[in-house]
Amino acid sequence: MANAFGQLTYPEISAQAEALAAAHAQLNVQRDWVDRYIGNSAYDEVIFIGSGSSYYQAQTMAATFKKWVGRPASAHPSSEIYLFRDAAAVPGRNYLLVGVSRSGESTEVILALESVKGVPGWTTCGITCHEDSKMAQMTQCLISPLGKEKSTVMTKSLSSMTFMMQAASAVASGKPELQAEAGKVVEADAAVVKAADPFAKTFVRERELNKFIYLGMGSYYGLSQEACLKIKEMSYVWTESFGTLEFRHGPKSIVEPGTLVCLLLSETARSYELKVAEEMKAYGATVLVVTAAKGDDTAFADAVFEVGGAELSDEARGVLYLPVLQYIGFYTALKNNVDPDHPRNLTQVVKI
Amino acid sequence: MANAFGQLTYPEISAQAEALAAAHAQLNVQRDWVDRYIGNSAYDEVIFIGSGSSYYQAQTMAATFKKWVGRPASAHPSSEIYLFRDAAAVPGRNYLLVGVSRSGESTEVILALESVKGVPGWTTCGITCHEDSKMAQMTQCLISPLGKEKSTVMTKSLSSMTFMMQAASAVASGKPELQAEAGKVVEADAAVVKAADPFAKTFVRERELNKFIYLGMGSYYGLSQEACLKIKEMSYVWTESFGTLEFRHGPKSIVEPGTLVCLLLSETARSYELKVAEEMKAYGATVLVVTAAKGDDTAFADAVFEVGGAELSDEARGVLYLPVLQYIGFYTALKNNVDPDHPRNLTQVVKI
Repeated sequence: MANAFGQLTYPEISAQAEALAAAHAQLNVQRDWVDRYIGNSAYDEVIFIGSGSSYYQAQTMAATFKKWVGRPASAHPSSEIYLFRDAAAVPGRNYLLVGVSRSGESTEVILALESVKGVPGWTTCGITCHEDSKMAQMTQCLISPLGKEKSTVMTKSLSSMTFMMQAASAVASGKPELQAEAGKVVEADAAVVKAADPFAKTFVRERELNKFIYLGMGSYYGLSQEACLKIKEMSYVWTESFGTLEFRHGPKSIVEPGTLVCLLLSETARSYELKVAEEMKAYGATVLVVTAAKGDDTAFADAVFEVGGAELSDEARGVLYLPVLQYIGFYTALKNNVDPDHPRNLTQVVKI
Repeated sequence: MANAFGQLTYPEISAQAEALAAAHAQLNVQRDWVDRYIGNSAYDEVIFIGSGSSYYQAQTMAATFKKWVGRPASAHPSSEIYLFRDAAAVPGRNYLLVGVSRSGESTEVILALESVKGVPGWTTCGITCHEDSKMAQMTQCLISPLGKEKSTVMTKSLSSMTFMMQAASAVASGKPELQAEAGKVVEADAAVVKAADPFAKTFVRERELNKFIYLGMGSYYGLSQEACLKIKEMSYVWTESFGTLEFRHGPKSIVEPGTLVCLLLSETARSYELKVAEEMKAYGATVLVVTAAKGDDTAFADAVFEVGGAELSDEARGVLYLPVLQYIGFYTALKNNVDPDHPRNLTQVVKI
């Protein structure tokens, strides 16, 4: 019954502003976690790990941490840490391994955390939405209190954990202006979510698209991968994600009429990124730009979704890009008569 | 005229064993490069950069370097270094930035190398196939003498540069057994190339496939991305690549009959990876395994291509996986009546 589709996913996307606010409040309660872990300069490198969506948010967390805190960080799939640790990390360094998992039960993050137990130089911690989970019991975790979800696909859980780790990085940086940015994101999110819903609904309804390409750089690269996975899981459409300038090096050969190119536009590289999108427009692509603010430079695009926050850093603003990307996945699923709550072949927690 | 298609690409794929041998000989001439750059422990981290195929080989180079040399390394798109350096690297460390570019003329690698000129703590070097190129003139480069190509798509250039940097890492490691592995790869390559051609031709002819998924872990992740880009550039088909175990976290929802799952199988994680491929087989996928050696554990697969070299490390063996992946891209293009020499929208060197 098509009108029962998405009963789990839709309210979860729509409730993300509350989840961000709760995560922000909870961070105040867990300030000792920041001091002990990511705020502690005894670690030579912070490694964020996860699987699927959680790996993509780990990439955004690592990029933000490096930029804001100024210490080494990286992101890896959990499976690389327990099966190929020597290709990800090297002997003789102090590593802080941060597990990222909505459920805290994903076999791979547990195996990865267990694999470094007792290994000299390795310390673990994590972030999850489930305070009683296996991961939260084995290592100290930040908790996103309203991130729990019933849908298989991650939406508000991801938005709130990404935000919470960024807010924790702001604290670790010791820079009051970055901590203030976290507060501004919480304030702005509800209005962005509200505007994103009808925008996405109309955008999807009015267009016939057969490929969905998401582009982003810096901390937005992880978000572009997440946007791609969202629509892939929910709709099974042909979708890919790339670093914005990377897309010109080969992958753009697939662009033709009917291809959506969705650019998660940074202010840092705005002119470079828009030039790529404009080139794709010339090949016949439909271009959607998600940005802080429209300008004459975005006039060529077929559609622009503004999130505001031009005064924020690119890193902080990124969380405001998520609602419209999640709604586009959701409405594309409905349009294709697929239930976004129950993706083919998938389960909520992956066990191996 | 369909029978003129691929006149440039085919002989280049087929000549890669000679390109490897020439790179191996050239490395002996350039041993001072190894001592001065990647063999020099004064650098806190080695960052390999490139665009498109060169970024993917940079990932394989970084994974190999970490495993073999035991010092920190990472890979980034060139564009991330000149536009988002603070999200890739941090202040106060000594970085060796290694540019990877077939032509040595790619605007982005040049901009990235120029962007760190005079920045405290940054040193540059590179690897290319063109000894008179802009990059080779601005910084000291390893040269793959027979890597030069006329086709837009990279094949033997990539195989020979990946091999050459691995052989250089073997020298930097000071481990004679790894240096011996490089010699064994050169010896084995011609026979692998020869066997890969008819295997790929038959494999493509006998099957109707509409999606091409490439999976690999550790140093094979970069190769899986390259295999994916190869067939994408040449054939415009729906193709994606993932870390093998990552594929189960969402992306597998696209698997259905007509989907190829091509596993670049490691010996390190053999049983874990085959379990993923077997699951995809159950969803209706056609499974191709590229491996050192068949076994009872690969009997479920629709096809297996053996490269031999079970006694080699996974890292060294990887270069032997490339010919069959390149030929599959090539024959898929011909089957779809597309000229692999002249990909849509693309040029040999990307200028911005």
